[in-house]
Amino acid sequence: MLDKFKDECGIFGIKPHPEAANMAYLGLYALQHRGQEAAGVVSESDGVLTCSKGQGLVSDVFTREKLQRLRGDSAIGHVRYSTAGSNRIENAQPILITCQHGQIAVAHNGNLVNAMEMRRKLEKIGSIFNTDSDSEVLLHLIAKSKQETLEDAIIEALNQVEGAYSCVFHTKDKLIAVRDPRGFRPLMLGTLGESTVFASETCAFDLLDAQFQRELEPGEMVVVNRRGMRRSMKPFEEKPIRQCIFEHIYFARPDGFMFGEHTQRYREQLGAKLAEENPLEADYVIPVPDSGVSAALGYARASGIPFAFGLIRNHYVGRTFIEPKQSIRHFGVKIKLNPVRHLFEGKRVVLVDDSLVRGTTSRKIVKMVRNCGATEVHMRISAPPTTHPCYYGIDTPTRGELIASSHSIDEIRKYIEADSLEYISIQGMLDCLNNSSPESYCKACFTGDYVIPFPHQAGASV
Amino acid sequence: MLDKFKDECGIFGIKPHPEAANMAYLGLYALQHRGQEAAGVVSESDGVLTCSKGQGLVSDVFTREKLQRLRGDSAIGHVRYSTAGSNRIENAQPILITCQHGQIAVAHNGNLVNAMEMRRKLEKIGSIFNTDSDSEVLLHLIAKSKQETLEDAIIEALNQVEGAYSCVFHTKDKLIAVRDPRGFRPLMLGTLGESTVFASETCAFDLLDAQFQRELEPGEMVVVNRRGMRRSMKPFEEKPIRQCIFEHIYFARPDGFMFGEHTQRYREQLGAKLAEENPLEADYVIPVPDSGVSAALGYARASGIPFAFGLIRNHYVGRTFIEPKQSIRHFGVKIKLNPVRHLFEGKRVVLVDDSLVRGTTSRKIVKMVRNCGATEVHMRISAPPTTHPCYYGIDTPTRGELIASSHSIDEIRKYIEADSLEYISIQGMLDCLNNSSPESYCKACFTGDYVIPFPHQAGASV
Amino acid sequence: MLDKFKDECGIFGIKPHPEAANMAYLGLYALQHRGQEAAGVVSESDGVLTCSKGQGLVSDVFTREKLQRLRGDSAIGHVRYSTAGSNRIENAQPILITCQHGQIAVAHNGNLVNAMEMRRKLEKIGSIFNTDSDSEVLLHLIAKSKQETLEDAIIEALNQVEGAYSCVFHTKDKLIAVRDPRGFRPLMLGTLGESTVFASETCAFDLLDAQFQRELEPGEMVVVNRRGMRRSMKPFEEKPIRQCIFEHIYFARPDGFMFGEHTQRYREQLGAKLAEENPLEADYVIPVPDSGVSAALGYARASGIPFAFGLIRNHYVGRTFIEPKQSIRHFGVKIKLNPVRHLFEGKRVVLVDDSLVRGTTSRKIVKMVRNCGATEVHMRISAPPTTHPCYYGIDTPTRGELIASSHSIDEIRKYIEADSLEYISIQGMLDCLNNSSPESYCKACFTGDYVIPFPHQAGASV
Amino acid sequence: MLDKFKDECGIFGIKPHPEAANMAYLGLYALQHRGQEAAGVVSESDGVLTCSKGQGLVSDVFTREKLQRLRGDSAIGHVRYSTAGSNRIENAQPILITCQHGQIAVAHNGNLVNAMEMRRKLEKIGSIFNTDSDSEVLLHLIAKSKQETLEDAIIEALNQVEGAYSCVFHTKDKLIAVRDPRGFRPLMLGTLGESTVFASETCAFDLLDAQFQRELEPGEMVVVNRRGMRRSMKPFEEKPIRQCIFEHIYFARPDGFMFGEHTQRYREQLGAKLAEENPLEADYVIPVPDSGVSAALGYARASGIPFAFGLIRNHYVGRTFIEPKQSIRHFGVKIKLNPVRHLFEGKRVVLVDDSLVRGTTSRKIVKMVRNCGATEVHMRISAPPTTHPCYYGIDTPTRGELIASSHSIDEIRKYIEADSLEYISIQGMLDCLNNSSPESYCKACFTGDYVIPFPHQAGASV
Repeated sequence: MLDKFKDECGIFGIKPHPEAANMAYLGLYALQHRGQEAAGVVSESDGVLTCSKGQGLVSDVFTREKLQRLRGDSAIGHVRYSTAGSNRIENAQPILITCQHGQIAVAHNGNLVNAMEMRRKLEKIGSIFNTDSDSEVLLHLIAKSKQETLEDAIIEALNQVEGAYSCVFHTKDKLIAVRDPRGFRPLMLGTLGESTVFASETCAFDLLDAQFQRELEPGEMVVVNRRGMRRSMKPFEEKPIRQCIFEHIYFARPDGFMFGEHTQRYREQLGAKLAEENPLEADYVIPVPDSGVSAALGYARASGIPFAFGLIRNHYVGRTFIEPKQSIRHFGVKIKLNPVRHLFEGKRVVLVDDSLVRGTTSRKIVKMVRNCGATEVHMRISAPPTTHPCYYGIDTPTRGELIASSHSIDEIRKYIEADSLEYISIQGMLDCLNNSSPESYCKACFTGDYVIPFPHQAGASV
Repeated sequence: MLDKFKDECGIFGIKPHPEAANMAYLGLYALQHRGQEAAGVVSESDGVLTCSKGQGLVSDVFTREKLQRLRGDSAIGHVRYSTAGSNRIENAQPILITCQHGQIAVAHNGNLVNAMEMRRKLEKIGSIFNTDSDSEVLLHLIAKSKQETLEDAIIEALNQVEGAYSCVFHTKDKLIAVRDPRGFRPLMLGTLGESTVFASETCAFDLLDAQFQRELEPGEMVVVNRRGMRRSMKPFEEKPIRQCIFEHIYFARPDGFMFGEHTQRYREQLGAKLAEENPLEADYVIPVPDSGVSAALGYARASGIPFAFGLIRNHYVGRTFIEPKQSIRHFGVKIKLNPVRHLFEGKRVVLVDDSLVRGTTSRKIVKMVRNCGATEVHMRISAPPTTHPCYYGIDTPTRGELIASSHSIDEIRKYIEADSLEYISIQGMLDCLNNSSPESYCKACFTGDYVIPFPHQAGASV
Repeated sequence: MLDKFKDECGIFGIKPHPEAANMAYLGLYALQHRGQEAAGVVSESDGVLTCSKGQGLVSDVFTREKLQRLRGDSAIGHVRYSTAGSNRIENAQPILITCQHGQIAVAHNGNLVNAMEMRRKLEKIGSIFNTDSDSEVLLHLIAKSKQETLEDAIIEALNQVEGAYSCVFHTKDKLIAVRDPRGFRPLMLGTLGESTVFASETCAFDLLDAQFQRELEPGEMVVVNRRGMRRSMKPFEEKPIRQCIFEHIYFARPDGFMFGEHTQRYREQLGAKLAEENPLEADYVIPVPDSGVSAALGYARASGIPFAFGLIRNHYVGRTFIEPKQSIRHFGVKIKLNPVRHLFEGKRVVLVDDSLVRGTTSRKIVKMVRNCGATEVHMRISAPPTTHPCYYGIDTPTRGELIASSHSIDEIRKYIEADSLEYISIQGMLDCLNNSSPESYCKACFTGDYVIPFPHQAGASV
Repeated sequence: MLDKFKDECGIFGIKPHPEAANMAYLGLYALQHRGQEAAGVVSESDGVLTCSKGQGLVSDVFTREKLQRLRGDSAIGHVRYSTAGSNRIENAQPILITCQHGQIAVAHNGNLVNAMEMRRKLEKIGSIFNTDSDSEVLLHLIAKSKQETLEDAIIEALNQVEGAYSCVFHTKDKLIAVRDPRGFRPLMLGTLGESTVFASETCAFDLLDAQFQRELEPGEMVVVNRRGMRRSMKPFEEKPIRQCIFEHIYFARPDGFMFGEHTQRYREQLGAKLAEENPLEADYVIPVPDSGVSAALGYARASGIPFAFGLIRNHYVGRTFIEPKQSIRHFGVKIKLNPVRHLFEGKRVVLVDDSLVRGTTSRKIVKMVRNCGATEVHMRISAPPTTHPCYYGIDTPTRGELIASSHSIDEIRKYIEADSLEYISIQGMLDCLNNSSPESYCKACFTGDYVIPFPHQAGASV
């Protein structure tokens, strides 16, 4: 799939470690797929927190010099995407502020659904806002708390917000990781020698040689103190778990483990199920790279149709590509994908992708493939139709832009000009889960069954 | 004088003007001498304020593309220095925030002496701070105000702070310029056709072809509305005026008019008075460029001793100069100044400078001049001894670093190895004023007679 | 395979086209995999050639502004790698010079084996050299030619050199593409409306919507004049054809057609042959991405062993990665590849790669995979052992660094700590060719059977 | 004067010195006024020359990292301007080439008048040219020389060219500095401990703590070998000396010594002579900064009219200033100069400048000053009318652009709208020389009396 969704955010934390900022840099590097627009690290040295952040990829934002200035044995980090309207450097995270409890920094993944409502309330009593981010609301609530300890202040603040949050807080002497009671977003706990490490995905541990220990449980808070002692607590009211199934389908890196499932295996099973649900005769199964590859492989195995890399991705795609004035057919797609032309000549092909959002990209790919001589082009999507926007941390388009919210599958098929189009069923998607319960997932983007009512759509801090 | 003080800040505002952001860019460019570390502009278009700022010179921070994004017919701007410890981009101005009164941006020149005290109070009731800047306190107070109009909220906020402030506020539909009741820092009012323009110094008007109208009076607030209508008011309790005499001596550009005086003329008169107070025989009067030039010219005229440009300034001084490992004598000074060697051979010279802060630079200059063969080196300073730090917006060193706070003039003379050293007297400095009253000036840095008591030294937003 | 070889160069030319430089930019972008260290374009407007080049990726080197300055309806371009010792900007291409025949620019892919010898001769008669590149020799020979026309001068010059060259020359009114008589390096001819396009690989045509027409034949020269008329000639003595088989195995993009073969199909067949030559029982076939993927797929199909993406490539690898001080196991590999850990647990795996040069990377990958719990790790290489360096345009290491030049397969197996190691046989590799004759290929890197003797190794202009 | 001429070049060399490249960096920094468009350094380590150059100011071109790569104990450097049409990086110097004599680098100041003629000859025998620079001709001639030693080859080459050259050559083991027999351009010899230093002006020695020893004599060649031994020779036929008097008037830094004169003193004398030649009554003498300052001071002293800094230069002028769309009167001048407005009110002023080339800038300044209320504006030029272009290394406009070549003084006066306009007489200019003979100077730009006939105007390598 070709960047049809903006990725959400990735967060990281480590304490204590002699090279804390360097480790945060590496961790963010491994989490880069979760956000390419901005990156930041806050480290602590002698009780003073220092922040460095910027727009762009982790390797562009941080120079050796900048990393060296982030001294100390404790650090948190964040990668984020930013929507067109708000790619202000101010919105980059971690956010570092000072309040009566001292300095606090936070790296937040998720979206608080009552953020706008809380913000209005806070503004009414005179609060000022420097960013568009819902995470700033959280910091205001912490600052306003009369609790004696910062931990208690954080708990009090989190009890006032509703929605999705996996956060790592950094105070002058502690790292505090927390996952909301419904567990929308992932958060992993690892160890590296004496150090505790937190990360959105296990791939960050792999790169650091850290040991993955376990996922934070929904509603769990883990506090690491200056000496590295780790305490766990469950300070929130228990709620039904609603982990994001779209992480499995699209966001997470395939080489990871999340919510009890091995990501790549789950995707292959989705592909296999897709093949079972709608059998078909064809010459090749062709993945839309990169994220459709696992499902396509599963599809091919289950169907017995040969798998082929018919679409080659250009690995040098830069963000500031200069377009020619003259029209080139399917230019936007071709700059990223190129077909292996001869493969399609006279062949019936099944294209497997992991999502279909607006339909515009799929339409271009189908046409491109037909131009190469394919006689039949079948599109298979390893997710159910995306009919509803996400309010819990994924930057889906608005409902109006989601083609499946207003069109039947056959209408979409016609639009993308495919010979057939099938999505996996919701039940099929759930049947593929191996170790986790279907009830423990949020499927609102496919069902519209939002577990938390939302007043308005808040500016998401994903 | 060679950057012995960090410059303070410069502010600018214009409304309405079809090229508001471009005009702000030009205005800041003309005010560049007031701050070289960061620059920023906020413009307003369709009721939405947009901010662009960065570290470095105005011409480095703003590209054509960045300026084009600052649309609308109204803009404010700011140039600032930053002290070593806090050159964080977060501290750059204008600061743009959102609160119950909507978006507000401020460009502030000055220092609020009770900022730290107010900040502690605000933190206690749960406020969060994103910067080290005292200007943020001001925005919190405005946000907390229950006044109906933003103007009244600003007035209420300013009535709670003590100290020095010349500010231009930008709201979604107004520009509000204000100068504190004591008038520490300058603020000028000009017009450019139908537009109202505010700037720290008149040179900004010259570059824009704007007409200088008058200085804002101490305690005056001028409001410009969307259609360009201008209202003036005096909403604060009247207080004794205390304009900064150091602006005349050092900060302001010589080609300007401020506090009723022509800057260059005043400096020449200081030089002349210096010559009268301590007559001397010598072969040449030599300015320490650039800021000592006017006083030296006045000195030469009054004393009859020939004026000579014996020290040449290097105009290409960059901020990231790479030093050699091997020691070069007086390297730090030589990279900026080079003597006209033959001029000094066997001659008695009077060096005229406008200040002597730590004495280290003067010491290097005296040595450098002696190395060229000067037989007598006399140092003359066109200001009285700087014995006390400034708390009203100038980044003087701490008292301990001010050599005149703990050493007699003769001790300083010995330290800098001059044959003689004289400062202008405080009375002499005041006698040189032509159109303004000596009582209307703050001379605290020379007398320690601080008009406002200060609880602690706050992080100055100069 | 992970950048074990430096890629060689990519060349491009177009004439006439109203957006010639933009098309060259796009073409180079599609050829980026052939060289990431420098890129350049020369365009012609009103008979004057203008050059713009720089170090880095195409999208970094060219800004909109730079492209706009490359006016005219005719352009050539070049991407190159550069060896550590000579990544001087001077060596970037195209090289643009002036001589008695006027301005000439050249983009050259290949290596002239007698370049150093010719250079010594030229130096002896007083020539000066600005680069380390063998291409400069070619320009000297052209400049010295007494032929009346530039075409004849180019022919005369090329008749004096030996080795590999696919070149596009740009003169004030012509584009001249030429491929050496042995045809070592590829060169494709396409059309885009009235325009003639030349490119190293067909993928450049795909991106531009140009039609691939045919490959230039070994020894063919094609001249495009101002009006777009195209003439072909064969001005060189015919020689046995020796196309580089390593293009098929490793360099070329899989979505292309070259030397009569479809690249991806050939690679899959290599994988299949590899499976046939050395049958094996295992649980998974796992490609070393990205270039080992096609062969692994072919291997899996032929062997019936399931294919799995067990190694995930990080797509954000930057060139200036900041390493931590603390040692991380297999860091250099892990920053690029991460294993899907659970897949390996208790499994017997076959890793398929397309080459094994020094063995150090393979050794790290084998260890990484064993750390994930693999019980058996078999390495299969879809090329024969690389025993000899290339002198015809590929930057292989020196013979001493090629592990297969001095070690038996079993010794290599021990070094990389694999349970087994097999390479495809030379005969097997040739048997996989579908449309081209085994005799028409250069296999010197596997056999040491160099078709052209070389005096010394020249500085290659690949 | 405001950059009416492009500056010429500055050259530097040092050998042996443990920090040779750092010293070259500093030396070029001191010579920055001689060329702001490009800078470069070549250093030698273990017999290998390495070059680093780029476009922009010395402090922009060189980073710490780049300087560190320039290892070794020997270096040369160059700063240059570039005319609009040819600011190609290829034209930056030093030029480093390889030829039969090994590697040679040259930093050249001056212009070879027969360069184009020699280039045509060289092209005819097959030479290729990579730059537009006349210096490349020199390198070709050296490369072609059959002399045994490189010194002799250089002598042979220089004997074939005509014109202006001060050069420092760097070979694998020697530094060779040479000044043409007529001595058009300056070249200074200094020592720094055991090191020999060459520089265009003495200010480079001042910054390095090097001792100025003497000027190279016209026609002198100085060779420094690996151990630092220095030999001097005079290998060229003696010719009448023609040092550039315009260096005294405009180019050279005032704090230097050149051609036997102290630059600042000479300029003051020009000003005094100007006053004597055309007495006048006025209220103020006002310099056009920066280069008109010394002459204005001399004028004021001689005339008894008070000197005043009526025009203030903006020190932050960047090269990429963004202009507003709306017209601002005299914008181009105002961005650089601002008048001290009150000074001019009702006053008669004499503006003293050191040259008047096209008249456009003077015209703007006169208008700007009149707008401030000056009742009379008299312009005085401390040089004779510039009637002829320079072919010996100064980038004067073409003859058609030199207003004095086709207009009488009164016509120019009318054009610039001054009340009077006077230039110093040629005799007056010569009378001001103290230690050097009027015959030893080239005054061709004032007289048209060119000492060397020139075939066509060559692309100057100044």
